[in-house]
Amino acid sequence: MENERYYGIDIGGTTVKIGLVENGAVLDKWSVPTDTSDNGRNILPDIVRSLPGPAAGAALAVPGAVLPDGTVNKCVNLGWGVCRPTEEFTTLTGIPCRVLNDANAAALAEQRLGGGKGFESILFVALGTGVGAGVILDGAVRVGARGSAGEIGHLCIDPEDQAAACTCGHHGCLETYASATGISRLAALAGYPGLTCKQIVDAAAAGDEALEAVVDRACDVLGRGIAGACAIIDPEAVVLGGGVAQAGDYFRLKVQDAFDRYAFHACLGTEIRLATLGSDAGMLGAALYAMG
Amino acid sequence: MENERYYGIDIGGTTVKIGLVENGAVLDKWSVPTDTSDNGRNILPDIVRSLPGPAAGAALAVPGAVLPDGTVNKCVNLGWGVCRPTEEFTTLTGIPCRVLNDANAAALAEQRLGGGKGFESILFVALGTGVGAGVILDGAVRVGARGSAGEIGHLCIDPEDQAAACTCGHHGCLETYASATGISRLAALAGYPGLTCKQIVDAAAAGDEALEAVVDRACDVLGRGIAGACAIIDPEAVVLGGGVAQAGDYFRLKVQDAFDRYAFHACLGTEIRLATLGSDAGMLGAALYAMG
Repeated sequence: MENERYYGIDIGGTTVKIGLVENGAVLDKWSVPTDTSDNGRNILPDIVRSLPGPAAGAALAVPGAVLPDGTVNKCVNLGWGVCRPTEEFTTLTGIPCRVLNDANAAALAEQRLGGGKGFESILFVALGTGVGAGVILDGAVRVGARGSAGEIGHLCIDPEDQAAACTCGHHGCLETYASATGISRLAALAGYPGLTCKQIVDAAAAGDEALEAVVDRACDVLGRGIAGACAIIDPEAVVLGGGVAQAGDYFRLKVQDAFDRYAFHACLGTEIRLATLGSDAGMLGAALYAMG
Repeated sequence: MENERYYGIDIGGTTVKIGLVENGAVLDKWSVPTDTSDNGRNILPDIVRSLPGPAAGAALAVPGAVLPDGTVNKCVNLGWGVCRPTEEFTTLTGIPCRVLNDANAAALAEQRLGGGKGFESILFVALGTGVGAGVILDGAVRVGARGSAGEIGHLCIDPEDQAAACTCGHHGCLETYASATGISRLAALAGYPGLTCKQIVDAAAAGDEALEAVVDRACDVLGRGIAGACAIIDPEAVVLGGGVAQAGDYFRLKVQDAFDRYAFHACLGTEIRLATLGSDAGMLGAALYAMG
């Protein structure tokens, strides 16, 4: 029945992942390349050409801030400025469309179907080039008044740390220590330049003490930031996703240890879990969001 | 009509403030002393004896953590351990009863009727002996999975600051700098021991440069913590309440300046306002919460 089918569309900087979802089950999924030329104006037409037919609704997950009224406030990686892509999508397809930030979409999917299943409220932390997050409270994604809820990557850890310049213009933001980029930066400061985050974490897990100290520092900052976020929203659980979290329990347990060192006593029972949906999370979350 | 009347009951360590509220208007208000003897077992009977008659509902605002199921997890200032006061209240009166934390009650009142009126989401920060807070998102108070949402007082500012021992057992929590107690502590460290927070802020406002530096330090920490909380929940506005905030715009503008220095760029438009309901906020918020 097309009136129970929804498109989840996760628009990344290189690939668009699209799923057709019915009752939480993925009937089909595919991808199209993201054409960022010409300010990304081909992205939506390319998506629309790939769709097999009508649906009850769709949602776009985008790598940028989304205001509560559906205005996208720039997606640098797509070439998009301030725009309203849902209107163009609906004009092209006749399908009602919503839009949300990609970390928020992944958070929603992990809460409903993944690492946060069974909880009504989670903090989802996406550890990649930067550190994004999504806040699910009382079963709903909370995007914030300016679409900026969950910006845990910009919690101030050490404003005096001039070596920790952040892309946001400040110094000492959490993501300058705990993102993939941040972990590589810490390793370079410790005398190991030119390593990727994966190389660092793998070497640390294999017993390299100097690099383990780097990973410990990143996890200390992350645990402290998550403890701060939990003091504000007190979720039932925290779910770690993104590329860095693929290091699995080795990484998760270090974050849990740091969290337990910093957490307000009432929050000490908060479990830190791993995401389970991988790179499908954004697409699935978009489909769930399309269902309303 | 008794079926539209609600009791708001704010139980403080020395006084219980009670209001009878109908359609948001206070028909009558009074107080009874808080009898903390005998583990506070007279508190509820004393309240109940003062009530003029039946009502559609009541809510208790208490100075301690409240779990989502209505269990109160200790109120040291009342002599209460873990307890379920709503059941005793309903047994004594026949009136349905809810319970919430007092800072959460004040947050709800300020959002509906006070400094946050007109906004659907606010962070309320109560600056007193400690620093409490309440989170209102999408028009509802969000108490968290363990009743600990809004514990901004325990955001970690500087874990290495051994002089900043917090009542929670950690070091460098926000409230060790920005509460009334914290401001007195900072003044003592600067060579001015024995001053109350009000004396310090008044002297700073009157031109004492050394004490103004103390207030600036407290406001810097507070603005940084509020910026962190706003990065997580992105409310429309922030409302400052509690005794310290009675210093008014002198204090508010310093916090706004600090917030603007630390805030994530998308949150820069967040207004910092003053609470307007004073010591009635807890009672009014409890009555609003009783209405459900």
